Amino acid sequence: MRPSRTLRDVATIVVDVMPKAGIRDPQGEAIAGACRRLGFGEVISVRQGKRFEVEVSDADDVAQAEDRVAELAGELLANPVIEEFVIHGA
Amino acid sequence: MRPSRTLRDVATIVVDVMPKAGIRDPQGEAIAGACRRLGFGEVISVRQGKRFEVEVSDADDVAQAEDRVAELAGELLANPVIEEFVIHGA
Repeated sequence: MRPSRTLRDVATIVVDVMPKAGIRDPQGEAIAGACRRLGFGEVISVRQGKRFEVEVSDADDVAQAEDRVAELAGELLANPVIEEFVIHGA
Repeated sequence: MRPSRTLRDVATIVVDVMPKAGIRDPQGEAIAGACRRLGFGEVISVRQGKRFEVEVSDADDVAQAEDRVAELAGELLANPVIEEFVIHGA
């Protein structure tokens, strides 16, 4: 019996990585231009980022698992010079 | 006076694009391997997708604006053969 167990052992944690405000996003700008050419004139701007779904084991403490994934995101998934990230559940 | 106006005129709508279940994701697999080599042994798998923040004008009807962005996502942001997308508010 493990009374401290609060949730399931496997969790999917989402990391959203976006270019920081003020950092140019040429891909997003190109997509915004394409949208307008395709008839979506209401598009003001597009920012493109990345989304990761990270499945982790030993996640009976979800807050701790999210802390670990935040550490991972800072080291491997996002470039902290130009990108910021947000961690949340799936 | 525009009594039908429900929200602000400019809205940011988020499009999350992920590889469909069953479609291989070599980038995600490579990242999962790198995580484990970096000491994050609890990582079972990583799926990598894209996240778009689309800012649109004339969005006094948010549901309608989201429908337009869904149309846009199907045409331009996602490849419907291998990817699926979800639309939501920022």
